Order: sequence, then structure tokens, then C-alpha cells
Amino acid sequence: MKQALEGIKVLDLTRVLAGPYATMIMADMGAEVIKVEMPGVGDDSRQFGPYVNGESAYFMSINRNKRSMTLNLKKEKAQRLFMDMMKKCDVIVENFRPGTMEKLGLGYDKLKEVNPAIIYAACSGFGHSGPYSQRAAYDAVVQAMGGIMSITGEKDGKFTRVGPSIGDITAGLFSAIGILAAINYRNQTGQGQKVDVAMLDCQLAILENAIARYVVTGEIPKPAGNRHSSIVPFEPFETADGEIMIAAGNDVLWAKFCEAIHCQDLIEDEKYKTNPLRNQNYPLLRPIIADKIKEKTTEDWLKILDAAGVPNGPINTIDKVLENPQLLAREMVVEVQHPTAGNFKMPGVPIKMSETQGEITRPAPILGEHTHEILKELLDLSDEEISELQVEGIF
Amino acid sequence: MKQALEGIKVLDLTRVLAGPYATMIMADMGAEVIKVEMPGVGDDSRQFGPYVNGESAYFMSINRNKRSMTLNLKKEKAQRLFMDMMKKCDVIVENFRPGTMEKLGLGYDKLKEVNPAIIYAACSGFGHSGPYSQRAAYDAVVQAMGGIMSITGEKDGKFTRVGPSIGDITAGLFSAIGILAAINYRNQTGQGQKVDVAMLDCQLAILENAIARYVVTGEIPKPAGNRHSSIVPFEPFETADGEIMIAAGNDVLWAKFCEAIHCQDLIEDEKYKTNPLRNQNYPLLRPIIADKIKEKTTEDWLKILDAAGVPNGPINTIDKVLENPQLLAREMVVEVQHPTAGNFKMPGVPIKMSETQGEITRPAPILGEHTHEILKELLDLSDEEISELQVEGIF
Repeated sequence: MKQALEGIKVLDLTRVLAGPYATMIMADMGAEVIKVEMPGVGDDSRQFGPYVNGESAYFMSINRNKRSMTLNLKKEKAQRLFMDMMKKCDVIVENFRPGTMEKLGLGYDKLKEVNPAIIYAACSGFGHSGPYSQRAAYDAVVQAMGGIMSITGEKDGKFTRVGPSIGDITAGLFSAIGILAAINYRNQTGQGQKVDVAMLDCQLAILENAIARYVVTGEIPKPAGNRHSSIVPFEPFETADGEIMIAAGNDVLWAKFCEAIHCQDLIEDEKYKTNPLRNQNYPLLRPIIADKIKEKTTEDWLKILDAAGVPNGPINTIDKVLENPQLLAREMVVEVQHPTAGNFKMPGVPIKMSETQGEITRPAPILGEHTHEILKELLDLSDEEISELQVEGIF
Repeated sequence: MKQALEGIKVLDLTRVLAGPYATMIMADMGAEVIKVEMPGVGDDSRQFGPYVNGESAYFMSINRNKRSMTLNLKKEKAQRLFMDMMKKCDVIVENFRPGTMEKLGLGYDKLKEVNPAIIYAACSGFGHSGPYSQRAAYDAVVQAMGGIMSITGEKDGKFTRVGPSIGDITAGLFSAIGILAAINYRNQTGQGQKVDVAMLDCQLAILENAIARYVVTGEIPKPAGNRHSSIVPFEPFETADGEIMIAAGNDVLWAKFCEAIHCQDLIEDEKYKTNPLRNQNYPLLRPIIADKIKEKTTEDWLKILDAAGVPNGPINTIDKVLENPQLLAREMVVEVQHPTAGNFKMPGVPIKMSETQGEITRPAPILGEHTHEILKELLDLSDEEISELQVEGIF
């Protein structure tokens, strides 16, 4: 066994982001993910730009390491084939609107009758229970409803959406966790189960201290900008040519910081001796630091503060992120060779494992690229039988 | 077995957020998490306000379901006890600065000699390899360096930090995934391993389409505000008394939306017939919709748009989130009884499992609450031996 999830077979009905993100994580760690797509169309995100030689860059970046087969699940014969494949698999993942699988005759209740060991993961906007369960959601809707927008933004400014689709992505992460926990349970008991993850629920789960603050003080948390609410200095400052994040989280770091910026006198200044004092005298202190930081370039300050051991960082745009030496050393920027799109950069595998390091062994699949291969492998069909299915429009 | 991770013993050396978040997820699903803290002080976040009867609300909200023992790991005898406990455990999790465990004589290389099946998870700012590995990081630093700030904010506005500490939280999520994958591998092979997760790596992993867009077009992504970059209407609009997020993601929803707002004429208007046209004629279309939405209250529009099946949502502040009927129905707001803090609200368990639903069975522990119990349970020490250790200041 070279990979942590080797041998785990996943039938993947997901599309767009939340579901495909979950199955990508599993595929990155060696699970055999079979993407089942509608003939002719496939995952909606195959239509999302930008394109490279006709292939969606969006799709390619979250469907690596998976194989693709097509199957028209609206046809009865295709549903039977799906059932037969399901018997040979460990996990099913879907992110349809609740009820869709039932309409296809492929709801969890039916599947578990045929294969009680199956793990069925459903990732949806609002979950498979509760008054909103039948509603459609988009990332923007759950970010709005879930509270994260109300605490993101400039100080006392407009409620702001988080740039990446964090509503989808965190649901994908929690789904992967739920599936892996269910695999552990199955390894012990032989019993499968349904894992139901809602994007909205996950938003609540990542609000961090905002809930505790509200529950205790009764004050409704607001956008707080880029400054730490109680530590000084802990925010971005303008440099001669840009901006830098400085995070001197305690008194020791404060002293190191003062030395690094050649303001040793601040260390002994009674007004700034402790963090509570720095907080209290922030209106006085900030301009002193700001003037100093403006004197040199970001690059200069990065070197000076790194040497002094003061936590800091450039506020990188995406081009700079992809050139960051630490991320490159950690193989977090990888180039994948795609048959039609050519070489294509994407994030590497963020979980580093000493015995079973995940890797990218294949690019995202062309629609239906592996239909024949999978039908043979899982169902032992002959070339003739496969040709007949094709003629009937089953795939 | 009632819980998915029942029987898995975790020695938890983590503090503050990323590590404790990972072990909370595991504890929520039944893992036995033993928090090992420094005598007298404990997890730094015990000092983070706000407090309820002297207990940190912050600490309580991410350390439920765990037990606490104290152990002064700077003392040799404590290190020996730790080694003995480690032999009886499955997982060790720490989020110290890399090198700290080695200095204590408890590095992974030593631990695995004694227990090759141990899974050792380290969650740090920059990871255990690469040129930055010895540096300290805070959430603000990795949000800055990792690119998410550069794509969050008002359109073409200032780079904005995501409100919750998404740098810590996503690292916690990926750590939990890595640990569970390693458990699967160990279930098959008996072999443990080290799982090394860096906050910065995880930031890259959640940038979504920003990387694909940059790699393909060469254009550096910027903050895009709250409007979808290519779909119309898909953004917040002001109502008579607040704001509402409206997400009409395709032409069918566009028609439903026009009917719901009594602008049927827009459906047939050639300027707005398709999404590309609505995008192109956005400057004309937006004011029409904006005027209409201003006519009624948020509450009115929520009802009207829900009835019409148009995805939408209020932009909730935290107080409203905690009252949301869907979240309440999904048991995502739970009240935990704490011995000194009393009743205390926090997020529920976002992974809903049909056979092994996670639950909150105990509140966050008082510092060292379970030292005696754990020393007896894991090491079979007598009351006398435990008293001696206490006198020696081992815990």
C-alpha cells in the first residue's frame, strides 16, 4: 500500500465545487474516484471559463486524479448499471439538491438495501433535513446567511463576501472528514451509513470566536478590518512601495520589533510597555510605527523583520503566492501535464504524510474518457455489450 | 460502537486554534481526546476573553468533548510518563513551532521507535520543511502571504482579511483529514506515520479559481466585492430596511425572479434575455432591479423569493444566525452545561451521520480536571504514586 486511501472505490456523482473538492482530497490520497457524468454535458463546471485549448481551467484544477465515465442516469438500464457498480464500491458522493437521487430511484434507502456497507455522502446547500432542505443554495447565499460576511470587511464597513467560495470549500472539507470517519466505523463494524453535510451548517462551524463573543457580551460582531481586535501592533502597514503584515503578538516580540525598526526608545516608554497599554494608546502609537515603516520598501522590511524574528509577511497577490519559496519547497505548486491543455499549474497536496505522501498521478479526465475501462473493470462487460450500451445511448 | 471514532485515543498537545479545532472535530465523532497542558497555565487560549464566570468563552467553544490533564513536559519524569501514555494511544497532535517536540526529547523519530503504530500530526504555520519552517506564524500572516486577502474586499478596494481565522481553521480541517487517512492506512497495515500540515499550504489549497484564472489569463486577480464576476443578478441589493443576497444563477431562475418582482417585461426584453446579455447590459439593468428591491422590506422579499424558488438569503449578523430556523432544526446551535460557566451556546456538530451521529457529551475541561483519572486509566498508577508525582510538580 503506497497511499493512505488505496483500494477505496468512490462513485462520484458530484459537480461544480463542494462535492468535487471532497473527492479530490480523497483522490489525492489514493482513493479510486470514478466520476459519473451525464453524456454530452458532464459536470457543469466543464463549461466554466477560462479555457485552455477548450478545457476548463476551473474543472481541471479540482478534478485531477479522477477518472470519468458517462452514464445517462435518467434511463432505467443506466440505473441498473449504477446499482451493479455500487455493489463493488465503498463510497458514493453526490451534491445534488436533496431528493434528486430519490427521483432517479437511487436514494440511500434503496442503495443500502443492496449494499449495506455503502457509505453515502450527500453535500448540499442546506442539508437533507429541516425547513430549507428543498431549497437551492449558492456559495454567495450561504456566506450571506451563515454570518461570515457580517464579520468580514473594512472596520465598520460594508459586509463583504470572502473571495474564494469558502461556503463550498468548507463543506467539501467536512464531507471528506465525515466520509473518512464513516470508513473507520465500517472498518470496525462492516456497516455503512449516510453522511449529510450542509454548506450552511459548515459556515456556522467556522465562525470562530464571533459566536462566543456575541453569546457572552450580547454585542453583535461587525467587520473589524485588518487590525487585530486586541493586540498591537498586529495589522498591515504601508511601506515605501506596498504593504506588509506585522504581527508582534506579545511583549517579547514587541521589544524585538522596536529594535528592528530602530525605535529602541519605545521599549522603555511607559505608554507602550504592555499590550493593554499599546492598545489603549494605539492612536498615539500607530502613526509612529506607520511613519517608520513607510521609510523602506516591503522587501527591505521583510528581510529586517525576518532577521529579528518578528512574525510578518507580504500581502501577496496570486502571482507572488505562486512564486513563494516556502510553497515551492513544500511542492505546493505543481505542474500537471494534460493531453489537450498542455502543462498546467495548480495547488499541490496540502497534507504531507511521511509514509503515504499523496500525489497527482493523472490530470483531470476528458468527459467519458474511462467509460469502457471502468465498465470492464467493475462489471466485467465485453466489448460487444459495451457497444450495445453505447448504441442505446446509455453512456 | 456508537460513534465513528470510538476507541481512538488522542494525546492532544495543541493550543489556541488550529490544533484544538482538529482534535475537537475528532472528539465530536467519539475519539477520546486527552488534552495535555502545562500545569498552572494550560492552553494559551484559556486566557482569551470574553470570560463567563472566569472561564474563557473562546476556549470553551473549541475544547468541548475533551478531557484535560496537566504535565510539565520540561521535566524528565513527565517526559517518561508521556512516553508511557503514548504507547497506549493512537494519535498525537501538536501545533508547536517546529523543533519544540525535539527539544523536549519527544520528536516523532523518538516516539516511533517506541510505538511504530503512532500517528503523529503536526500542524504549524509554515510546515516542518522548507526555508520558513522555523518561523512563527499567525493567522493574519498566512492570510496575507497566502493570497486570500488579495482577492477579498470591495471591488478594486483594499485587500481584506477574512473575519474568522480561516488560516487556522482550514489547517485544522486538513489536519483532521490527514489523521483520519493515516488511521485508515494503519487499520490496513499496522503502520503509523507523521502528518505535517502547514497553515500556508492550506491557504493555497483554498484559493479556488483564482489560481486557474491567473495561470490562464496572466491577469492578477483582485478583490471583486460581493457581485458574481459573470452572473447577473447575483449580488446583494438594498431593501427598504436592509440588504438581501439574490442569486439567480441561470435563465430559468432569471424568469422566475422577474415574475417575483413583478417585472415580467424584463423576461422578454432582448437586452436581458441571456446571462451574457445581462452581464453586458449590467449598468442598465442593475438600477432597475435595485429600485424594485428597495420597495419592500427584507422580510417581504425573503418570503416572495422563497415562494418563487429564487435562491436568496438575508445577510445575517451573528444574532440572526443563531436564530435561523434551518440551523436550529439541524441542531447546529447547542447549549452546553459547564460546571462553572453555566449554560453556554456554541455551534453543533456539522457532520450528520445516520449511524453514528456525533454529539457533545461533555463541556470543555477545567485545567487538569482529569489528571488523576487519566493517570490511573492509561498507566494504572496508584493514588500514592499519583500523590508523589504531584508533590514533585510533575503535574
